[in-house]
Amino acid sequence: MAAEQDPAGLRDCVRFLRAFRLLDADVQFLASVLPPDTDPAFFEHLRALDCSGVTVRALPEGSLAFPGVPLLQVSGPLLVVQLLETPLLCLVSYASLIATNAARLRLIAGPEKRLLEMGLRRAQGPDGGLTASTYSYLGGFDGSSNVLAGQLRGVPVVGTLAHSFVTSFSGKEVPPDPMLAPAAGQGPRVDLTPRVEAWLERVCAHLGLGVQDPHPGERAAFVAYALAFPRAFQGLLDTYSVRRSGLPNFLAVALALGELGYRAVGVRLDSGDLLQQAQEIRALFRTTGAQFQAPWLESVPIAVSNNIDEEELARLSQQGSEVNVIGIGTSVVTCPRQPSLGCVYKLVSVGGQPRMKLTEDPEKQTLPGSKAAFRLLGSDGSPLLDLLQLAEEPAPQAGQELRVWPRGAQEACTVRPARVEPLLRLWVQQGQLCEPLPSLAESRAFAQRSLSQLSPAHRRLEPPAGYQVALSEKLRALVQRLSAGAPL
Amino acid sequence: MAAEQDPAGLRDCVRFLRAFRLLDADVQFLASVLPPDTDPAFFEHLRALDCSGVTVRALPEGSLAFPGVPLLQVSGPLLVVQLLETPLLCLVSYASLIATNAARLRLIAGPEKRLLEMGLRRAQGPDGGLTASTYSYLGGFDGSSNVLAGQLRGVPVVGTLAHSFVTSFSGKEVPPDPMLAPAAGQGPRVDLTPRVEAWLERVCAHLGLGVQDPHPGERAAFVAYALAFPRAFQGLLDTYSVRRSGLPNFLAVALALGELGYRAVGVRLDSGDLLQQAQEIRALFRTTGAQFQAPWLESVPIAVSNNIDEEELARLSQQGSEVNVIGIGTSVVTCPRQPSLGCVYKLVSVGGQPRMKLTEDPEKQTLPGSKAAFRLLGSDGSPLLDLLQLAEEPAPQAGQELRVWPRGAQEACTVRPARVEPLLRLWVQQGQLCEPLPSLAESRAFAQRSLSQLSPAHRRLEPPAGYQVALSEKLRALVQRLSAGAPL
Repeated sequence: MAAEQDPAGLRDCVRFLRAFRLLDADVQFLASVLPPDTDPAFFEHLRALDCSGVTVRALPEGSLAFPGVPLLQVSGPLLVVQLLETPLLCLVSYASLIATNAARLRLIAGPEKRLLEMGLRRAQGPDGGLTASTYSYLGGFDGSSNVLAGQLRGVPVVGTLAHSFVTSFSGKEVPPDPMLAPAAGQGPRVDLTPRVEAWLERVCAHLGLGVQDPHPGERAAFVAYALAFPRAFQGLLDTYSVRRSGLPNFLAVALALGELGYRAVGVRLDSGDLLQQAQEIRALFRTTGAQFQAPWLESVPIAVSNNIDEEELARLSQQGSEVNVIGIGTSVVTCPRQPSLGCVYKLVSVGGQPRMKLTEDPEKQTLPGSKAAFRLLGSDGSPLLDLLQLAEEPAPQAGQELRVWPRGAQEACTVRPARVEPLLRLWVQQGQLCEPLPSLAESRAFAQRSLSQLSPAHRRLEPPAGYQVALSEKLRALVQRLSAGAPL
Repeated sequence: MAAEQDPAGLRDCVRFLRAFRLLDADVQFLASVLPPDTDPAFFEHLRALDCSGVTVRALPEGSLAFPGVPLLQVSGPLLVVQLLETPLLCLVSYASLIATNAARLRLIAGPEKRLLEMGLRRAQGPDGGLTASTYSYLGGFDGSSNVLAGQLRGVPVVGTLAHSFVTSFSGKEVPPDPMLAPAAGQGPRVDLTPRVEAWLERVCAHLGLGVQDPHPGERAAFVAYALAFPRAFQGLLDTYSVRRSGLPNFLAVALALGELGYRAVGVRLDSGDLLQQAQEIRALFRTTGAQFQAPWLESVPIAVSNNIDEEELARLSQQGSEVNVIGIGTSVVTCPRQPSLGCVYKLVSVGGQPRMKLTEDPEKQTLPGSKAAFRLLGSDGSPLLDLLQLAEEPAPQAGQELRVWPRGAQEACTVRPARVEPLLRLWVQQGQLCEPLPSLAESRAFAQRSLSQLSPAHRRLEPPAGYQVALSEKLRALVQRLSAGAPL
């Protein structure tokens, strides 16, 4: 993965915190699995729990986050914030993973291609799919085939047609209403099928195919689709054979619709060499459009799908590619290059006293104490490093030289930021939302803006330049003191 | 992945089918995203949809499935069964992936180790976690740390204690009630803390440690846990240092409890070299138990966790390992070796007429027609091959020689099964459940039994011997006919 992450999931955390309650049935179940001599007062305490004492600071969704900078800071009654560990990790980790993965795929695809998330069937159940659709949009995708994500989260929904729709037609079907009015509404309704058959002859002659080659069931499916959605006609081309069936059938229907003033909105390819076919199809759209005085045909969008991974995405997005729309499923929802993000949730302070876990693995040690985080920017506006310091320290000032300790380094360095941005914002105070969360589309725009401010070396995917996260002198001294003071 | 899969998700599919309905709000949302000239009758039709006309045949959950054999066969009104494509794939694919992955991990671990799923925080949201917990249990795990999976699905719930519980104590705390009665209920209550301190001196002397070495906050946490759950006392050993802090603190509390007749139930390690530490800890349990006449100490279960993957699991499960309980999170829920299972849902028949998709990729072709599936077994009871044939063909008979076409092969072969088992069972007929689904625990037992019947060569993970799935003469002839008859 890229060194930076796109933290996300805050909207789900806020929703969770506001609704958090143990119902009677929950407490009864807990009582059934805990030892029978558990103090009954504990269960009474559980029944009364809520998050009215919980305060949350967090990076806004769509910010850039680097390892070591807290995504969320949660404070409140000890028992409550401990109970929140797993739910908050569950809500933040996958959302951030997906948003980061989507941002990465967007960087590979460049700004022009339309990227569609189509992974619901490969997700971890319906809710995994909903999370994937929501946060891949936040990370830079353009939409999703997951209709529920549109309904519940406002993600733009998009789709094409299914192979099963095409194979369900044999060609012997009679459309319930075969007549179609012109797009402008003027003029008589016409029977679409004979017009399509007439166009098929001309198209096959132009393409050098026999008129028997294109599958009649596929054509019947396209006609049915065109009659139902004449302003949104599109073709799925590879059910039988793109070149000999899907393409001529599509062209025949599109040209028949074109005569009536309707413009086809796209084609999709779902097998074979997607790039090569897209190039061939665009060329045929050009020659066919020229042949039949249908210049609009040239710009019909070509959509592709079929297990597209990062390498294939780069290939499909190369200079000169005629692919316009790219549907990605498995590679966005399962993040095969790194299927989980190792977020942790650690106790850093109790009653104002810092706490630190040492463990047998130095990299699992935590940074103790309540902390503040700042991004230090250079005079060109690009981030220089992120600084962690104790919450009580004064914020760093623009233009002033600071001595800081990069994480993992043995020596301090100095930095003079041209600008300083605090990273963590107060979202929930004592259980109350302090300011409305940005909309999903706003967070999406913020993510793209944040990425664009990153220097090219940091934005590069392979290998990204390391971005420094540093500790203030005081925070570093606290780490040293707690490490040494611990029993060893 | 192993060649075989453990199909699962049927119980979720049945639940989904029985509840399937589009609410007014759903239809209104669809109307808002479909073209404005969509026929209003379509929305009326959607409002009335349900699965009362749907019939489902399926492999029982926990069966062995091989590539090409249908996991589910769905029949019913065309529009309805087409709408079910994505939900059923979503419910079956991940469930089957997880069950298969869990079965694979169980094969690696062997039958003795207790395997616990602890992956909620790394799952695709809460429902992804629930699915993972449910189906990892079905696949052979012993339990889950996901309490909701216990409450909703009956998965045994298990857990230890959190690092944040340990670090929340400084050692200066005073327990609200420091007194503990003996386990047998006879005799006076005693103050546990001074007894623990007395045992700490003896334990430290035995282990060659200074009495100041063990962290007092960790000990206070253990004492608090022991007071709350004296019959379920366990220690998380690696918050500060296993050898110098976690272990002596655990031993002091466990021995103090032991005097009162309570037996500690376990320890957990979550960092460092887990196997080596387990071996050392077992040795220290032995010598300490012998030293202090506490022989029960020797058999206190040792649990381990920390990003355990297949290789580490094999290491932890090797002959002579002193590890008893293995908690796995990321590797079970995200299946990093293959994070998705490429199940497909294809139209194979309309109105009794077979349908087939050809596509540009030969391996994406479908097997046409309504089919039946049988497992042919040898005289030792182990499966020989699976046979797919047309639904109308008579079932193969035990003892009779059959001529069949292995998938992908150019030649037929003959087989004489000693036994024949039909694979697909009718579960839902016209929307009604035909027989109760087995309980999760029954499906789990069935999965283990099914795996044990597989020949060792087929059960082997690396590399598994290929298991043949074959077509009957008639099914093969149909495939040939539709491939040739399609427009090319």
